[in-house]
Formats: sequence, structure tokens, C-alpha cells
Amino acid sequence: MTESPAIDWANPLRDARDRRLPTIAGPSGLVIFGVTGDLSRKKLMPAVYDLANRGMLPPGFSLVGFARRDWEDEDFAQIVHDSVREHSRTPFREEVWQQLAEGMRFIPGDFDDDTAFKQLKSAVEELDASRGTGGNFAFYLSVPPKFFPKVVKQLKKHGLANAAEGSWRRAVIEKPFGRDLASARDLNALVHDVFEPDQVFRIDHYLGKETVQNILALRFANQMYEPIWNRSYVDHIQITMAEDIGIGGRAGYYDGIGAARDVIQNHLLQLMALTAMEEPIAFDAESLLTEKLKVLKQVRLPEELGEHTVLAQYATGWQGGEKVPGYLQEDGIDSQSKTDTYAAVKLEVDNRRWAGIPFYLRTGKRLGRRVTEIAVVFKVAPHSPFDSTATEELGANAIVIRVQPDEGMTVRFGSKVPGTSMEIRDVSMDFAYGESFTESSPEAYERLILDVLLGDANLFPRHQEVEESWKILDPIEEYWAKQGKPAQYPSGSWGPKEADEMLARDGRSWRRP
Amino acid sequence: MTESPAIDWANPLRDARDRRLPTIAGPSGLVIFGVTGDLSRKKLMPAVYDLANRGMLPPGFSLVGFARRDWEDEDFAQIVHDSVREHSRTPFREEVWQQLAEGMRFIPGDFDDDTAFKQLKSAVEELDASRGTGGNFAFYLSVPPKFFPKVVKQLKKHGLANAAEGSWRRAVIEKPFGRDLASARDLNALVHDVFEPDQVFRIDHYLGKETVQNILALRFANQMYEPIWNRSYVDHIQITMAEDIGIGGRAGYYDGIGAARDVIQNHLLQLMALTAMEEPIAFDAESLLTEKLKVLKQVRLPEELGEHTVLAQYATGWQGGEKVPGYLQEDGIDSQSKTDTYAAVKLEVDNRRWAGIPFYLRTGKRLGRRVTEIAVVFKVAPHSPFDSTATEELGANAIVIRVQPDEGMTVRFGSKVPGTSMEIRDVSMDFAYGESFTESSPEAYERLILDVLLGDANLFPRHQEVEESWKILDPIEEYWAKQGKPAQYPSGSWGPKEADEMLARDGRSWRRP
Repeated sequence: MTESPAIDWANPLRDARDRRLPTIAGPSGLVIFGVTGDLSRKKLMPAVYDLANRGMLPPGFSLVGFARRDWEDEDFAQIVHDSVREHSRTPFREEVWQQLAEGMRFIPGDFDDDTAFKQLKSAVEELDASRGTGGNFAFYLSVPPKFFPKVVKQLKKHGLANAAEGSWRRAVIEKPFGRDLASARDLNALVHDVFEPDQVFRIDHYLGKETVQNILALRFANQMYEPIWNRSYVDHIQITMAEDIGIGGRAGYYDGIGAARDVIQNHLLQLMALTAMEEPIAFDAESLLTEKLKVLKQVRLPEELGEHTVLAQYATGWQGGEKVPGYLQEDGIDSQSKTDTYAAVKLEVDNRRWAGIPFYLRTGKRLGRRVTEIAVVFKVAPHSPFDSTATEELGANAIVIRVQPDEGMTVRFGSKVPGTSMEIRDVSMDFAYGESFTESSPEAYERLILDVLLGDANLFPRHQEVEESWKILDPIEEYWAKQGKPAQYPSGSWGPKEADEMLARDGRSWRRP
Repeated sequence: MTESPAIDWANPLRDARDRRLPTIAGPSGLVIFGVTGDLSRKKLMPAVYDLANRGMLPPGFSLVGFARRDWEDEDFAQIVHDSVREHSRTPFREEVWQQLAEGMRFIPGDFDDDTAFKQLKSAVEELDASRGTGGNFAFYLSVPPKFFPKVVKQLKKHGLANAAEGSWRRAVIEKPFGRDLASARDLNALVHDVFEPDQVFRIDHYLGKETVQNILALRFANQMYEPIWNRSYVDHIQITMAEDIGIGGRAGYYDGIGAARDVIQNHLLQLMALTAMEEPIAFDAESLLTEKLKVLKQVRLPEELGEHTVLAQYATGWQGGEKVPGYLQEDGIDSQSKTDTYAAVKLEVDNRRWAGIPFYLRTGKRLGRRVTEIAVVFKVAPHSPFDSTATEELGANAIVIRVQPDEGMTVRFGSKVPGTSMEIRDVSMDFAYGESFTESSPEAYERLILDVLLGDANLFPRHQEVEESWKILDPIEEYWAKQGKPAQYPSGSWGPKEADEMLARDGRSWRRP
């Protein structure tokens, strides 16, 4: 099948302790549209190399780049090489690189260019012949959303979207999956006109993170947590994705989109669905979809959107000892922009498990620090046999899943303070991925690209989820679009005072993660 | 009330963070019978000093020693001084010592000696006058059990057992509280002929340990643990007190008593009662007694004692790199002795919470290492949506309360192993007293002596508990007394194979703590 030198591709770096060998992708190739972009250079190319280095790719694996550049295959290989040297997680090994580089092809052209797509088709056929890719190709659309329709149509027109019997073609698309329900439906219609639903892999890179996958392991492989994972014991749940950076060079993409669409619609609602869902009948894509979809359909928005949701913009402030500009002063941002860089919403889930228990979701740029976490905050004990003075410093029990950074879990509970009086104070127990496992965590994109090649759709949201998420978000966006300027918060703070007031009205407060 | 120099007795070392000031003992004194013994020198005297140093004792606190020694007060003070310098937990401070030493008296005599008891009475009266002890005295019987009747009777005869209106007298007694139900009842009758039940403080020093008191805080001040603390979720509970030492110089006491009487009857059954009991209506002695007593009364012995209990003796073996003799080779032990140095029993609790859930209690000398722990081992999850290969290395969830050493708590649960396959393996979360609190833990005897002076009986087993515990143990002792020689286990091991078989019959195994 291949002329490449005899390397033990199946097992170069594998941890000998892992007796459950992960599945290696079968014969296949990956075509990346938009190969010159940031995502491709910083995440996709390094992930492909890391997978190869870990022996997860087939010997003849091939990588095709498509972009409007006047490059030869060698130029492309050099770009990939530089990206791998700079960003890969695993050590660089020349023999792995050589094997991979032999399967690299570059197609110059823009998305209107029929000639380029014909060349692409030829390249695919040539690789099938020379590298044994077997007709199996994934097309990664790492391009701005406005180009989606064009690329998808071209793939159809040139017969690339569907493979011969026994082979597969898959499409990988990145968010945004629309900017509201209507546009998401249009996009889905367009994509599904060309690809069957099980050919389409929507990337939500948060779902590739170990800690996110671990939510289901924690909940359903253990006995301890599920009995208290419901309205009888839980007071509320806080899901936070905080960034310390501003919009950086993303003004063009970000303005008009905002934090709620950029983060809550996908990442946070997915985290919420995994936290709230019932046990799936199996750990497969169909069963996971079924349960996540149930949660998203059961989500209820608060009636008073002005009281239970907050959108805001970062103002000038201090971060990392430096004075930073406010959102409206950023390059490329209209000084009258109403785009939110912070969003907090209160949602409930109308089912037997969660009725009446709020899920508070928040995200923002230029917050105190970079952290993503899910905090399940419990009610206080229904009765305490101790004197009230013994427990006056005792808070609520909490289980906090730290998605990033410092992946792991913290449990906060009350313990007796050493000494001759009975005083009970909060303490915490900690589990850190880094300390508990010798295995290091693969990057989310490694995991997700491999899953695409394997056809494992567990970690990819389906179009139904995308649409249900927009149904949740649209009324919030519509409400705020009618209001005046959004609230402001100083850069480096933990958000606007309106968000604190929103929780204070419920007698609660945000965690300082 | 006192002529002593102005030291801020109320607050010499107190941690400023502790805003719930512990209660300081009122005017009082402590009389120790058997003041020359090991317990007195290693534990009681140092604990008295540590309490004084922490400002927990009243300014005129007085310490009276009673023993068959030809000592003056100054000789006694010197003995206390040496013991304090060697064994106290807190730093030696001359001014604290001076204040304490002024209140020291020594009464030479044996327990038959009426003159000595008259002298004791005079000393008490003199201290009331000179130190303001107010007639409040605790009598600590740190003497072999055969002397209990004599001392108690002498206290009565000389009018020391009961104080004038508004003052108190208390008796402190150490285990063994009998060697079976009958002898325990005799002892209790004797003691209660002289003292009212609330005057009697039975020391089980395990109950003075922070981690033991914390069992109730963990269970009842938190929301998270109590919902899973029952037969629906718990598979079984293991309570272990392992020692690495042999009998040392205690042959005379130990032979004929054995591990079950020495440890299970008191320490382990008390730990079991605290682990299993229902929430008390308040954190006071009466309410705790009520609940512990209910558990002890509900304990059910297995029908086949030969299959579900094991007594054994340590044989020659290796410990700490040294060859050590077996029990029968120890100095002062009859080479035909049948005394157990290891005991393991399976008990059940016949109530709604625990029906059918075994409590395995074990203790032994010359085991692998010194450790006392309570392990609540949960059932496996009732169903797993994951492939069976994903969970084949996953054990049962467990909450382990580490009583000593390295006090704290560990929770073991399953977490996803980083990597592209779904593999779930046991990990643990840890809470360590030493890391979580700046406060250091008082010695158990500090806590318990202070409680005696305060009249706080929360941590002292009552005679009803002692008798119920013997009702549990007596049939086991009677069964094994009729058998031949006990099983043997090599010193340095984790007990006899019979104990492993005992759990294997139930499809379980002992933890290796």
C-alpha cells in the first residue's frame, strides 16, 4: 500500500501502560481549505503531526492544502514544517516528519476557481493511487462563514462530496454555525443539500477537551455523584468561560457577533447540556445527541430578560500591570458599537431533575483571569445539629470541574477546624489531571481530527443542537438589540455590576474562580 | 482569687484568626492517681501544661499527684517538669511553668492508706483556700483496673467524691472498662455507687482525635455526603486500626485480654457508631449517647462466628528491616497463650439505613504499618453507558477518613484517562488537616482533660455504651475460647490468610491502607 520506509507507525510513542489501544485511523487524507489561516497553522497542522507522531494515523495519510497562494507542494510542506516545529505538543522526529511530508500536496486557487477544484480532484485520485488513501477524505472548511456556500457547492459540483461505495467523504465545519436561528437553518440546509447529516462534523473544540469528556465519566462511571446531581441537593450551577485577553486582531469577525453568540450559543450551552443531561443509553453519537437535545429543548428562558440576562462591554482598565483600551477604542471597532464582550444569562431546565434550579452561564473578555469551569453549588445541609456559631463561616458545598487551565476537579465542603471548640469551616479536596496521570492530555484538535477520520461523531454537535441553541439565544439577542448602549465593566474586573445584581436578586453571588 | 503574677492567662498563644473563643475551664484542680505511670508522664502531664500554655486553664489551676513514692511537692514538680520538657506539644515558657508549678502538690501513700487520703483531703482544702480552686476537683484514676474499687471506695470514705453545693467532683477512668459484660457491669455498679453517672468520664482517647470528631462535622454540616451514606449506595465499610509495634512492655496487661477486647470493644465500636449513627438532635452528650447507643443495640453478629470473625497471633517476621519475635516468644508471655493480637469481625446494623451492609472491623499488632482509618466503600454504579473495556480498571468509589497518622480524608473515584480512547481509571482527591489548617491539632488528652474540667461529656462513652459493646464482643470471645490455637500471621504482614478468606467469601477484599 505504501513505499515509505518501515517505521512502526502503529506504536512509536504509545504509553506502554495503556493496554486499551486507541483505534488508529484507517487509510485517509485531510483537505484543509483556508490553510494559510491562524487556526490551520496554530492548531490543525500541529495536531496532524502530533497524531502521526503518536502512531494514530495510517501510513499513507495525506494532507492537502488549498489556498490562494502561489505555492508548490514543497512550499506548503515548509509552512507545515514551521508550524509543527513551533506549535506541536510532542517532540519533533525527523522520520515521522518525512513520512508525513511525502503525503503533502498543495492546490493553489480561490473558491470560485473550477480549475483548482479539478486539480484537487486529481490530487485526491493521485493520492489514492500513490499513498493508498482509499478514497477517504475529510474536507476541513477553515474559512470565514461567507465562503461556506461556495466551497460546499464546489465540492458537490466536482464530485468530491461523495465517494465511491466503501469509501467516505466528510465535511468539517467550524463555528459560527450561523448568527441566529434563521441563518443557522439556512446554513444547515445548504450543507445538507450536499452532505448527509452523518458526513458533517461541526467542531466545538471545547468538546475535545479532556475535562469536558470527563464530565460524563464522572457522572456515569461513578456511584457517588449522580445521587446528589439533582434539584433535591443542588442549589444552582455556574458555568463560566472567562478570558483575560481582548478581541485582539478579531475585530472584523467579532463586532456584530459578540460574546453571547461567540461563546454561550455553542461552548457554554454544550457544557450545560453535558452537565444537566440524563444518562445516555450508550456512549455513542446518537445517544448523546438524544440526551443533549432533550436538555436544550427543556431550557426555559426567564420572563424578565432585562433582569436575568446581562450584556456588557469592556471599558479601559488594567490587566497584567498594563493599561488596556476599552472595546470601543480597539482598532477596527465602531465607536458606537453595541456588541457585547460579556454576557451572563440565567436559564432553567424544565424537567423533573432540574425544575427550579438556575443555571447561570457567563462569558467575557478582559476578565480577571483566563478560566473555564463548571461549578455545581449545593444547598446547605437541611438541618445542622451544631451551634450556629460553629457553622457561621461555612459556605455551600460545591463540586467544581476545572475545564481549563489546571484541568481537574475541586470539591469544597465543611470540616472541623482543629482545636477544642467545634468550629466548621470550608476546606477543599483537589484532583488535578497533571498530578494524577502520567499520560498527557492531547490537544482538543488532535482528538477531534482523529475522530473525524474515524467517523466517531460523539463529540460533535449536530444541526438539531445548533438550532435549539439559537432558539435559546435569539430572544436574548432580540431583547438587547432594542435596548440602548450595553453596560460597561473595567478591563481586568470580573464583569459589570449589573451581573452581580442579577445574582444578588436571587440571593446568590458569582464565584471568583 | 489568686496571688500569681499578672500573666494574660486568657490569651497567651491563641490564634488571632479564631474568633470563636474556646471556653476556658473555671476554677478547678486535677488529682492524678498513678502519677508515676507511663500514661501520666507521657500524656497527662504534658497535656496539662499544653492547656495551661494555651490559656485554657484557670489561673489557680492545681495539680495533685498521688503515688507510693517518698516525694515532696518539689520532687513531684520536677517530675512533671521533665515530662513536660520531653513530651509537650507547645513550646516551654518559664512563666507558664512557674504559675502551674505553684499549684502542684504531692501525696505519698498507697491506696489502702487512710492517712494519705486524709492528707489528700487537706490538700484539696488548702488549694481551695490558697489557689481558689473552689472545691472543684477531678480524680483521674490512671491505675490498673484492680485498684479501681479501692480508690473509688476511699474517695467516698473520705468525703472526696462529692462536693459542697455549687462545686463539683468528677472521676476519670481509663479502659479497660471490664473484660466482659459481667465484669463491666460490676465495675459500673461500683463506680455508680460512689459517683452519679454524669460525674464519671470514661476516656476513649480515640474520641479526642480531631478526625474522629470530624466524622460528625463531615456527615451533618455538609449536604454532599449524607444522601449517599446508606445501604442504597454503600457496599460496605471497613474500619481499621493497625499497629506496627508488638506488645512491648505490656505483656502483663495484654496477655489474656487481646486485640478484640483492647481495641474493638472500645475504639472501633465507637468509630463504627459515629460512622453509622443517625443525626443527633443536638451536638450534646445526651443526644450523642442516644444515637450511638441505638447503633450499638442494632448491631447484629453473624451466625457463623467461625466464618465471619478471625482472631490471630503474630508470628516471627520482619518489620522495619529487623527480624522480630512472634507473640509467643515475647518476654512475659506464656508460650501456650491463646491471646489474640489480631482480630477481625463482620458486623451488620439492623436498621433501615444499614440493613445488609457489612461493617468489617479489624485491628492488629505487628501489621504492615501504623494506621487508623474508616473506609466507606460504595457500590459500583448501577449501570454504565461506557464499553466494559473502558471501565475494566475502575474500582469502587470510596470515602476514606484517615484518623491517624496524616489526618484527613481521601475520596477515590473514576476519571477519564487522558487520551483519545475512553478509559476510566481510579483517581483520588485528598484533604489533609495539615495542609488545610494553620491551626495545629491538640493532642487527644488535651481535649479530653479540658472537657472533664468543663463538664462537657460529648466525647466520653457512657456505661450503657460500654455494656452494649461487651454484648457484641462476648459471644465472639466465647466462641474463640472454645477453639484451639489461634491462627498465625507473620509480623510485618497485613494479617492472617483467614482474614483475607473471610472477606473473599463475601466477594470483597481488605484495603491495603
